[in-house]
Amino acid sequence: MATLQDLGVSAAINISITFLFLIGFAFLKLQPVNDRVYYPKWYIKGLRKGGTKGDRRSLDKLVNLDYKQYLYFLDWMREALRMPESELIEHAGLDSAVYLRIYLLGLKIFLPLMILGFAVLVPVNVTDNYLVSSASQVISTNIDKISMANVKNGSQRLWVHLSMTYVFTAWTCFMLYIEYKTVAGMRFRFLATEHRRPDQFTVLVRQIPPDPDESISLHVEHFFRVNHPDYYLSHQVVYNANKLAKIVKKREAVQNWLDYSQLKYARNPSVRPTRRKGFCGLWGETVDAIDYHTAQIDQLTKEAAAERERVLGDEKAIMPVAFVSFRRRWGAAVCAQTQQSKNPTLWLTEWAPEPRDVYWYNLAIPYVELTIRKLLITGAVFALIFFFIIPVTFVQSLANLDGIEKKAKFLKPIIERHFIKSFLQGFLPGLALKLFLHFLPVILMIMSKIEGHVCLSMLERVTAVKYYYFMVVNVFFASVLTGAAFEQLNAFFHQAASQIPKTLGDAIPMKATFFITFIMVDGWSGIAGDILRLKPLIIYHLKNMFLVKTEKDRENAMSPGSAGFDTVFPQVLLYFLLGTVYAIITPFILPFIIIYFGFAYVSYRHQVINVYDPEYESGAAFWPQIHNRIIASLIFEQITLLGVFSSKKAADSTPFLIGLPVLTIAFHIYCRNRFEPAFVKYPLEEAMAKDTLDKATHPDLNIKRFLQNAYMHPVFKIEEDDEEGNY
Amino acid sequence: MATLQDLGVSAAINISITFLFLIGFAFLKLQPVNDRVYYPKWYIKGLRKGGTKGDRRSLDKLVNLDYKQYLYFLDWMREALRMPESELIEHAGLDSAVYLRIYLLGLKIFLPLMILGFAVLVPVNVTDNYLVSSASQVISTNIDKISMANVKNGSQRLWVHLSMTYVFTAWTCFMLYIEYKTVAGMRFRFLATEHRRPDQFTVLVRQIPPDPDESISLHVEHFFRVNHPDYYLSHQVVYNANKLAKIVKKREAVQNWLDYSQLKYARNPSVRPTRRKGFCGLWGETVDAIDYHTAQIDQLTKEAAAERERVLGDEKAIMPVAFVSFRRRWGAAVCAQTQQSKNPTLWLTEWAPEPRDVYWYNLAIPYVELTIRKLLITGAVFALIFFFIIPVTFVQSLANLDGIEKKAKFLKPIIERHFIKSFLQGFLPGLALKLFLHFLPVILMIMSKIEGHVCLSMLERVTAVKYYYFMVVNVFFASVLTGAAFEQLNAFFHQAASQIPKTLGDAIPMKATFFITFIMVDGWSGIAGDILRLKPLIIYHLKNMFLVKTEKDRENAMSPGSAGFDTVFPQVLLYFLLGTVYAIITPFILPFIIIYFGFAYVSYRHQVINVYDPEYESGAAFWPQIHNRIIASLIFEQITLLGVFSSKKAADSTPFLIGLPVLTIAFHIYCRNRFEPAFVKYPLEEAMAKDTLDKATHPDLNIKRFLQNAYMHPVFKIEEDDEEGNY
Repeated sequence: MATLQDLGVSAAINISITFLFLIGFAFLKLQPVNDRVYYPKWYIKGLRKGGTKGDRRSLDKLVNLDYKQYLYFLDWMREALRMPESELIEHAGLDSAVYLRIYLLGLKIFLPLMILGFAVLVPVNVTDNYLVSSASQVISTNIDKISMANVKNGSQRLWVHLSMTYVFTAWTCFMLYIEYKTVAGMRFRFLATEHRRPDQFTVLVRQIPPDPDESISLHVEHFFRVNHPDYYLSHQVVYNANKLAKIVKKREAVQNWLDYSQLKYARNPSVRPTRRKGFCGLWGETVDAIDYHTAQIDQLTKEAAAERERVLGDEKAIMPVAFVSFRRRWGAAVCAQTQQSKNPTLWLTEWAPEPRDVYWYNLAIPYVELTIRKLLITGAVFALIFFFIIPVTFVQSLANLDGIEKKAKFLKPIIERHFIKSFLQGFLPGLALKLFLHFLPVILMIMSKIEGHVCLSMLERVTAVKYYYFMVVNVFFASVLTGAAFEQLNAFFHQAASQIPKTLGDAIPMKATFFITFIMVDGWSGIAGDILRLKPLIIYHLKNMFLVKTEKDRENAMSPGSAGFDTVFPQVLLYFLLGTVYAIITPFILPFIIIYFGFAYVSYRHQVINVYDPEYESGAAFWPQIHNRIIASLIFEQITLLGVFSSKKAADSTPFLIGLPVLTIAFHIYCRNRFEPAFVKYPLEEAMAKDTLDKATHPDLNIKRFLQNAYMHPVFKIEEDDEEGNY
Repeated sequence: MATLQDLGVSAAINISITFLFLIGFAFLKLQPVNDRVYYPKWYIKGLRKGGTKGDRRSLDKLVNLDYKQYLYFLDWMREALRMPESELIEHAGLDSAVYLRIYLLGLKIFLPLMILGFAVLVPVNVTDNYLVSSASQVISTNIDKISMANVKNGSQRLWVHLSMTYVFTAWTCFMLYIEYKTVAGMRFRFLATEHRRPDQFTVLVRQIPPDPDESISLHVEHFFRVNHPDYYLSHQVVYNANKLAKIVKKREAVQNWLDYSQLKYARNPSVRPTRRKGFCGLWGETVDAIDYHTAQIDQLTKEAAAERERVLGDEKAIMPVAFVSFRRRWGAAVCAQTQQSKNPTLWLTEWAPEPRDVYWYNLAIPYVELTIRKLLITGAVFALIFFFIIPVTFVQSLANLDGIEKKAKFLKPIIERHFIKSFLQGFLPGLALKLFLHFLPVILMIMSKIEGHVCLSMLERVTAVKYYYFMVVNVFFASVLTGAAFEQLNAFFHQAASQIPKTLGDAIPMKATFFITFIMVDGWSGIAGDILRLKPLIIYHLKNMFLVKTEKDRENAMSPGSAGFDTVFPQVLLYFLLGTVYAIITPFILPFIIIYFGFAYVSYRHQVINVYDPEYESGAAFWPQIHNRIIASLIFEQITLLGVFSSKKAADSTPFLIGLPVLTIAFHIYCRNRFEPAFVKYPLEEAMAKDTLDKATHPDLNIKRFLQNAYMHPVFKIEEDDEEGNY
């Protein structure tokens, strides 16, 4: 166990790293040449415009020479906090605004609790002397002295902890309630004030049954004309254009190479660039690069046109899926919430995601497959979470040097050198694990895609769930119980249910100092590393150098990315878990968590305002998930405390803890009934109000025209744009 | 453990009792004087008419003298089977017809499995010799010799059991699938061919928010006129008439007394009947009974009229609940399935139950209370199931003789007699338990009512769930693990999760013979006792003697009752549990269960045709519950077998069992998606089809008039009928 001094050293190191990152950030972002990396959002919104590439007239277009600006290197924080929330919603969307509220919620929950904890719990703990008197506790530090560990077994002081647990739960629930209410209200206001959008009028219909006499398109039309006679407007069938999308994607890649070659030629007109024909341009016959790529593009364009023809003409390329639009929002709301057909697995309706949120690839999956896919992926995720360490160890064992030596004898002289050998042996196994962890979100996202969800927002949310479970098991439990996940699983399985809280209650208090260090490394430095944006910076400059020809290319090169809810939610929820679990046991952890929440709030607010460009807008549909996870953390905390109290032999007070989970679950059920529908359904009252308003303000709106091509596969749009460009 | 001989004795006794009951039944039902007890359904349908009471012209109106009819005393069974299912549905409703299919399903599942078990498992078991060779098994019977217990530890023969388990699961799932599909189809056909009913057009709206400017009635009208402009037709507010209902009920009781007195006077005109004024007519001043009761009735009629006036006039007596009717079924289907208001706890809509199914009393419960009520009742049911034995023991200890002696000294000489004392001491504690078990369904029904469900069908279903859990814990587990329920709970809680299947696997095979005896007593004799209808017979004759004045009174006196799904479902499901659990372990139990299912099918078919008069028609809405419980039994069986196999040290084959629960759960999820919506939602396609048909066949139907008073509190209808009678 670390002493206070150890922690101090760790804190010093991490704070230094954080400051280093911040200074680096401040320096880099002040250079005009990096402006598009650190302020892409403004370029996308068209509020900033940079010079084109050839425009290298003066040094101060590249480097900022105003030394005064460097002095106030933390100024961006004030900047970031300045924009009011309403403006933020308009600027970056509701998703981003509500995302930032999560950090704020962390502050709202833990700040008062920290003050209370230090005012009440710390004095109670520190004036007892269990750790001094007992010989059983071999090592004890100053941190343990101010934690619950210092209270004597069976002490009456535990009543204070008990009542504080109630206060803590009550306060957390209260804040959660307020927040849920606020977010639900924000969502309604947002949906109400939104502009007319195609998804408000449209329903995604899946599982359209085949009809022997009619094409799918006609079948859809007839079905909805019959069953929604007053509201049905039009529909758009979905083509299986996955192959076409692949061709187009390939053409884009070739286009990049062509651009690169042309740029190279333009800079050095004496030599025509060449490349080899084979794999990745590494092998094969050498040809003129510009000619070669141009020919390739011609070929691919032809292929795309042929494929497009085929898709649009072939009845079999039409999937049993359609986007059905209605005359009024009311009709769409009705259709999305009702069952259409006697067979509940046919004519499935749900709200259409907004067009840019659609994940087209998965629309082709048959419904029966979905259950199987879900089951398989659940099994796979379970295996991944509990047994991931096994293949990693296997790869590590493959990557040992003796094996490599045997297979590649020519490497032997190099490997046998002492320095290199020890370096590799220390480095390779770690690399395998690092690589795995780095690609984990990608793997999880692929799993979610295989599961068959049809919109990006949903994909990010379900990936977040998977990642969260992974973190809880492999970061939290693995640290607490020390052992690979599947060993813990085995232990829990062979343990009586009544024993589990006790195991947790014994183990968790011991790990407080470890988690404090974890917060500093992962939380503090991590955030600073995030806003530094080193990777995007390098990629941008590389692209800018080799590929950018037009202003549009440069915009593409910025690739600001989105906040990445699939990875940030699990992280912030892990901090909520740590905060709730340790709030009573070791309140000393709270300041570190609060600094994390505060710093993250400011940093990500800056990012949201200046960098991120969200791919979609779900209207904060993720909030129930956040809320439910925090509730789950609360219940976990209560179970742990049951174990801690029974370890402390507090027979009087322990039974009073049992009321807590019951109350918490009651609160959870209430919140679910009260607020959750706001995030999944669209009330008819709202739909009618918007319809009425629409009718009054735009009496002669041609809604059919407005919806005409809204739900066209983007690949067709690209093709159309290209064709327009050709003529 | 019982030997085959013991079982034979038990079987002989039970078969004798059963036959005794059946002969008694045959004898009693052939007497014309009992005709209304054994064939009330036909009287209610108006297909039989009996002579009025005074009509005692000949003996053969009372006693059947045709001796030939007594010879074929089992003839009713053939009669019962003769009516085809389609006619049965028309005669008794879909609920009853599908209820009978449960017994048939039992036969369909277990009959082939029994044949297979006896053809495959019994030879495999009987040719092994574990019980002969091993000294560990002290007592063993012939039944154990043909059960799995006789297979050697680690024997390769267990592969046969393993594959049979797969066959068993596959067959059960297949039958369940077929049955679910059939029942869902029957439900749709039933709903489609049904006559126009008010509940097809009506939605129950709860949680109508108060409006400062409008009455509730106006508020409802405005809300639905705005949000369902094309379909809203009318609505009916709900009055809190609980007090009025009480008065009316009291008046009916007094009316009974008046009838009794008048009859008495009519038979013996020389003496005017008298009664005492005080409690139950036992104390107080003696008065003329006819005058006294007439005065009482006048008084109560006035009270009722005043209360009625008050309820109809008082704005506060209107509850925030309304029955809203729509022009077309489509409109009602839309309204019932969608969310109306931004706040999802306001303007809650659900399908209205049919008028006679409404449980009016609970419509007055505010919504916020419902969550709390549900939580409290869940806790109470849990306590009742696991700790019911504690108050029973307490009452038993109170009821001991020493206590009674002390309190009532005058009883001492009687109690002290040896014979009476031992009788009472043996009898009283048992009586306490019997009384409790007798009133248990009533207690559970009261709990369900407190939970706040608003229709009788739902009340019966949730009571059935509670009763089922009670039976599983206190009949099944208590017999298997021998010990009070809360002791088992404690044991399970202090046991590792991996240990639980082993405990079950060790205990369950030992109890096969006990359950065989249980089936004979509870199942066979129980059913015979049921169709004997001794209690209704006595009550009918008492009423007939003392209260019946008019033909209508006699009809009321019949009180055929309904099948009582709240008690019969748990029973039949318990038999499914026994059958699935023992099918592989001890196939010898299957014939007993099959006899139960067959006998129950015939008997209750007779009852359904001739006796029961269902209170409501839910369109077999209970089927998902039956299906899910059988699936749960299957999974429980699989867990038990895991334990049995690991007890048998079948390390090779045990892992293959794990696939079973996974497959079963996948099957369950599939069935839920595929069929369950058919029982809770009403597809728009169906609604539209019926609407269109209606429009074509009855173009000038006045639907408003049809719905006018459909959802009026029955107490107002009674009052109206009375008033009509008065003029």
